Amino acid sequence: MAENWKSGINVAADRIAGRVVRTPVLTSTALMPGREVALKLEQMQHTGSFKARGAFNTMLGAPVPSAGLVAASGGNHGAAVAHAARALGHRAHIFVPEMAGPAKIALIRETGADLTVVPGEYANAMQMAQDYETRSGAMQVHAYDTPLTVAGQGTCLREWEDQGLQADTVLIAVGGGGLIAGALGWLGGARRVVAVEPETSCALNAAIAAGHPVDVEVSGVAANALGARRIGQICFDLARTHDVRSVLVEDTAILAAQRALWQAHRQLVEPAGATALAALLSGVYVPEPDERVAVLVCGGNVAPDPFP
Amino acid sequence: MAENWKSGINVAADRIAGRVVRTPVLTSTALMPGREVALKLEQMQHTGSFKARGAFNTMLGAPVPSAGLVAASGGNHGAAVAHAARALGHRAHIFVPEMAGPAKIALIRETGADLTVVPGEYANAMQMAQDYETRSGAMQVHAYDTPLTVAGQGTCLREWEDQGLQADTVLIAVGGGGLIAGALGWLGGARRVVAVEPETSCALNAAIAAGHPVDVEVSGVAANALGARRIGQICFDLARTHDVRSVLVEDTAILAAQRALWQAHRQLVEPAGATALAALLSGVYVPEPDERVAVLVCGGNVAPDPFP
Repeated sequence: MAENWKSGINVAADRIAGRVVRTPVLTSTALMPGREVALKLEQMQHTGSFKARGAFNTMLGAPVPSAGLVAASGGNHGAAVAHAARALGHRAHIFVPEMAGPAKIALIRETGADLTVVPGEYANAMQMAQDYETRSGAMQVHAYDTPLTVAGQGTCLREWEDQGLQADTVLIAVGGGGLIAGALGWLGGARRVVAVEPETSCALNAAIAAGHPVDVEVSGVAANALGARRIGQICFDLARTHDVRSVLVEDTAILAAQRALWQAHRQLVEPAGATALAALLSGVYVPEPDERVAVLVCGGNVAPDPFP
Repeated sequence: MAENWKSGINVAADRIAGRVVRTPVLTSTALMPGREVALKLEQMQHTGSFKARGAFNTMLGAPVPSAGLVAASGGNHGAAVAHAARALGHRAHIFVPEMAGPAKIALIRETGADLTVVPGEYANAMQMAQDYETRSGAMQVHAYDTPLTVAGQGTCLREWEDQGLQADTVLIAVGGGGLIAGALGWLGGARRVVAVEPETSCALNAAIAAGHPVDVEVSGVAANALGARRIGQICFDLARTHDVRSVLVEDTAILAAQRALWQAHRQLVEPAGATALAALLSGVYVPEPDERVAVLVCGGNVAPDPFP
């Protein structure tokens, strides 16, 4: 199974090459006194998050019907699907919950995709997207729980290793789990992976406690990106296989990490993009003295958009 | 002379290694249709601009008196001197003009340096800094027109080449000329260098026209970073030796480039940091079809600070 993921991620990387940004990495000594932190700045990706990887891989990895594509999204996935669809000449219909917020909604609208804003949270948008899929024959691009999406997101870790990643431990924020699943698929057990969730949106943590995916309530500052009500099955299985450490951070720690990224390196990211770093800066995850740590910065669609 | 600069920049690079950020590079296909643009993201440097390089090189390259350091600055240089002084355990007194603005003034204040805000423009702050130097015995760290400052800034291009820069042409914004002088010192004639100035702050352009440095009026959106009243002599001499192409951009083009960096890669930079890119995006500098272009993004201290 591990080899299958590696191979799927290699295929994905070839498939999406030239269509996604090879995002920069940075070794920071300014975030934590006396410790280097390796950062992958994936918020520089097209549409401001890693989601473009899975979106392109999905559209290039399966035949797209003439009815085009449909996606439900807290915002980032929808923007990525809309962007990839436009780049590849497909129609797209995106369903977003109101909680996505005006910045992300505007980002999707700019791509020219059809857009429906759904009252309530992500699960409501997902329901409407499924109805549309049935009705229209469009292809659903799932935000996190299909092999093509997960393999696409896994190219982020593959790229990071190709850029010379030096780390014993990689901290990754978790919403529905597509990114961390891709990371685990690529890394296998080669490095320790720490799953970081907001206390108020912790579908993986709750699933690990229950022994299977369960529904959770979602709220808080990162909810429009990390607020999946239930962890993806692919993520859950990979997390259990690799005995992933799951930690939770408070909203105040997320906001402090967001500020720290600006102050240290002038990187303005959304709360979800600072969530993995928050575990480190707040002391929720304390590395050993000689442990080399890396943090994946995953999204930059801050609200309000500085250029509305 | 070319060899002297190269050697001085090599010495500077060794001297400041570990004290400055090795800033990331990015190849963007999202900024200009059909063209790759290589970016050096120097706004991720400590205190948000390349100025930390020259500040550290100056303090490590000459004995610092017990009276410490003094600098006059539109903001970025002052913050860099204050930061480097604190890191090395020196006192520092920074003189900034009011036009530096609250974000940069707060940035300097945070370092614990002594700070005097001077009415009017940069030249007034420079006068007061010179008076303080005479009175106190502190060492002046010039913002752009000394060999140590220029050699420090030159390490930015040395680093970029070490990171695999592929470019026929490098576009660099010019204020007093320290950064472009360092670039010319390092590159010699090896690549074409384009000097980009705002129409409203164009000390190098005016000096080239006059045949020698002359005073200019300064204003516009980038004035608090690029608003030197007179180009540095070192820069002027190097620009003439290497027959630098000087171009001017409108404020509206600078603001459009600032927006483009956010939209393409979620990089929020100050107007000065987007000025070099503005020449490319506005068509003021039009590369040949096969010409490989690179843009140095030099500062990120946008006002207002998103985390005041």
